Amino acid sequence: MNSNAGFKASVGGSRQGRRSFMRSGLSFGMAGMAGLAGAANSEPIGARMPDAMKTLGGTDLAYGQPSPHEQAVQRLPYQTAPQTAGFAIWRSPLQHQRGIITPSGLHFSVHHNGLPDIAPERHELMIHGLVDRPLRFDLERLMRYPMVNRIHFMECAGNSAANALSPTALNQTLGDLAGEVSCSEWTGVPLSYLLNEAGLKDSAKWVVVEGADGGSHSRSLPVSALLKDGMIALYQNGERLRPSQGYPMRLFMPGWEGNVNVKWVHRLEVVDAPAYTKDESGMYTQILSDGQIERFAFHMDVKSLITHPSGMQRLPETKGFYEIAGLAWSGHGRIAKVEVSVDGGSTWAQAQLQGPVLDRAFTRFTLPWQWNGKKATLMSRATDALGCTQPLRSEWKRKYAMHSFHHYNAIQVWRVGSDGLVENSYA
Amino acid sequence: MNSNAGFKASVGGSRQGRRSFMRSGLSFGMAGMAGLAGAANSEPIGARMPDAMKTLGGTDLAYGQPSPHEQAVQRLPYQTAPQTAGFAIWRSPLQHQRGIITPSGLHFSVHHNGLPDIAPERHELMIHGLVDRPLRFDLERLMRYPMVNRIHFMECAGNSAANALSPTALNQTLGDLAGEVSCSEWTGVPLSYLLNEAGLKDSAKWVVVEGADGGSHSRSLPVSALLKDGMIALYQNGERLRPSQGYPMRLFMPGWEGNVNVKWVHRLEVVDAPAYTKDESGMYTQILSDGQIERFAFHMDVKSLITHPSGMQRLPETKGFYEIAGLAWSGHGRIAKVEVSVDGGSTWAQAQLQGPVLDRAFTRFTLPWQWNGKKATLMSRATDALGCTQPLRSEWKRKYAMHSFHHYNAIQVWRVGSDGLVENSYA
Repeated sequence: MNSNAGFKASVGGSRQGRRSFMRSGLSFGMAGMAGLAGAANSEPIGARMPDAMKTLGGTDLAYGQPSPHEQAVQRLPYQTAPQTAGFAIWRSPLQHQRGIITPSGLHFSVHHNGLPDIAPERHELMIHGLVDRPLRFDLERLMRYPMVNRIHFMECAGNSAANALSPTALNQTLGDLAGEVSCSEWTGVPLSYLLNEAGLKDSAKWVVVEGADGGSHSRSLPVSALLKDGMIALYQNGERLRPSQGYPMRLFMPGWEGNVNVKWVHRLEVVDAPAYTKDESGMYTQILSDGQIERFAFHMDVKSLITHPSGMQRLPETKGFYEIAGLAWSGHGRIAKVEVSVDGGSTWAQAQLQGPVLDRAFTRFTLPWQWNGKKATLMSRATDALGCTQPLRSEWKRKYAMHSFHHYNAIQVWRVGSDGLVENSYA
Repeated sequence: MNSNAGFKASVGGSRQGRRSFMRSGLSFGMAGMAGLAGAANSEPIGARMPDAMKTLGGTDLAYGQPSPHEQAVQRLPYQTAPQTAGFAIWRSPLQHQRGIITPSGLHFSVHHNGLPDIAPERHELMIHGLVDRPLRFDLERLMRYPMVNRIHFMECAGNSAANALSPTALNQTLGDLAGEVSCSEWTGVPLSYLLNEAGLKDSAKWVVVEGADGGSHSRSLPVSALLKDGMIALYQNGERLRPSQGYPMRLFMPGWEGNVNVKWVHRLEVVDAPAYTKDESGMYTQILSDGQIERFAFHMDVKSLITHPSGMQRLPETKGFYEIAGLAWSGHGRIAKVEVSVDGGSTWAQAQLQGPVLDRAFTRFTLPWQWNGKKATLMSRATDALGCTQPLRSEWKRKYAMHSFHHYNAIQVWRVGSDGLVENSYA
């Protein structure tokens, strides 16, 4: 076969580096891929007619569902003690995802007080405070405004908390370890239209955004950022928001930590200073190692995760060709490059970025790997358009206090054993 | 308010044209949008606390579903007489879609013999015929090959058949009229890897692609095109293919008519000439007005549809601001521009293209419209990167024989009555 076959994997660095990559098995082309298929010589092709070709098939559904054979692919619930029954985390099983779009049924969700059941015809969005004209919008009115659509990731501030906090690397799947991040197409009304229609007073600097859930989840956000990027999202992946994403409407701020994207949003109060709500003075702050507290750290930093292979997977053969594939994203803009190492960081090769590379969206990266069957240590390191790159876990830990876990974006390490088992690792 | 508020609608043409657009109500900015919201003065904001804020919310689902309040948003089945029970068309309700991604549960589907129930562990893909090494791939093997992910539309060759055939314009919704088109992210293995591994003989010119359904749906496709663009798709919108999309695998040829994207694909026979299967010699051919027959007309041509407002919708107020929004696509490449008319084609304004404008993908277009409350005739006309544009229905009908209906891409016309009702129209 043509070992390049339309696939390109470029590597950075010198000739020396190039030879190192080849030793490590990160290849330029896909020599070695051939031979995965079974030869067909032993049994003539077509000798067995699949059973499905002998019968009339079944009927379809008005609203399609996954195959019954894929029922194991579900979100992974993480629920705490009964006294916090309303608080739940549902993680996205990223190890099953290909491409950049997370199906809405598998989008991660964190809620602090359960899912409110909101009748859309009774729901209103209100804008008041430091405005010339307080306004209220029912859904029918809001749907008449111009809409924009954008593909963006969303990540919980607390994603990867286990890797930040646990002294030893937990042997879990990728979804369990880091599944509080997903990527969708979001469609809605730019907040600039609504705030400008209300008329902002000169003193208007912040907006307190409140959800209509039992916990009154609320965050203070700068007016300038809302005018630039904020959206009242009404649709996700082409259909109305799912209940766990804030039906009938939510705030959407591309690249910002998940909890500011207030779900079931019903009230925007324009103010001159942050309200220091419980959700921003207590829940979503970050203590640095010098004792200072970071508040309003909105942007999620550059991060990447190898999805294939990843934690608790087993490579079906203990040597040979595999494609390394993963996801990278940054709250600051586009992904510029992703480097991959299979030898614990001694050498790195530049991965290919697949499909559209969009601003503040999942970017899929891939790299062919010829595994020699020996223990291997896989890492990926993304760099965004600002030039920001991912730290090692030890570097991240030095920056933050011992019990901090928000905004964890250190390089994820997977150890591959000679038995093909893949495990989470810190080095 | 700032009437431009970050929204741009440019228009082509001369100053004369510019004035005409303003008369027609297709505006550059969004003056007139203000005032849609209800004033909040009569009742103090916050006087009513939504019921959902007073209770603990409900629990989430491991695999999320749409809101119970959105149960009306379903695919629209079109099934013929009992003797063709296996044949069904499920159309996408495009009038409910925003953005460019069609949710997998609402992706259109046409099947000729029902949905085969295929156990993935027993399914094989075979490549044989004019190759050096016949190959077979079970799913585990195939999943080890490098994958690519791409966002592409897919359209049935017979989409919009009613508009092509019916002598009078049927008063139906957009989904009923033209819902055999959708757009997803598709992920899978490039066919070039598999065909090159099998080793194509010099005489290899075509491939007969066969599905494992009871109808043995099969099409002959040129090797050169499969090597360039063909993919064995395994994932749609981030998760494994749905049963009605060919679980566990289908052929995907971006921009080509739906039926060549053979679902439940199990066999590729490499040959030197087309097989003229029933599906290509009978079902999917096209008779021109001069009596000649078009075969192997693979590419879907440039097309657009205004989704908002569209057939059988009623504008809630009989004058005022509305956003015109729609979808455009072309099997030949990117959308270059979309023009919109509200006066039956006398004047045209250039719509804004929203979000990513991708090769052979849905492109969302929007344009603000200040409706004067009089009868209006809405049309959209897309032009692709090749410079191809949409014909009028009368032009399309002149090209094809009276009973031809495949590849219908004429301009869709919506009439808006002074009562706000929107109806399908031919002029």
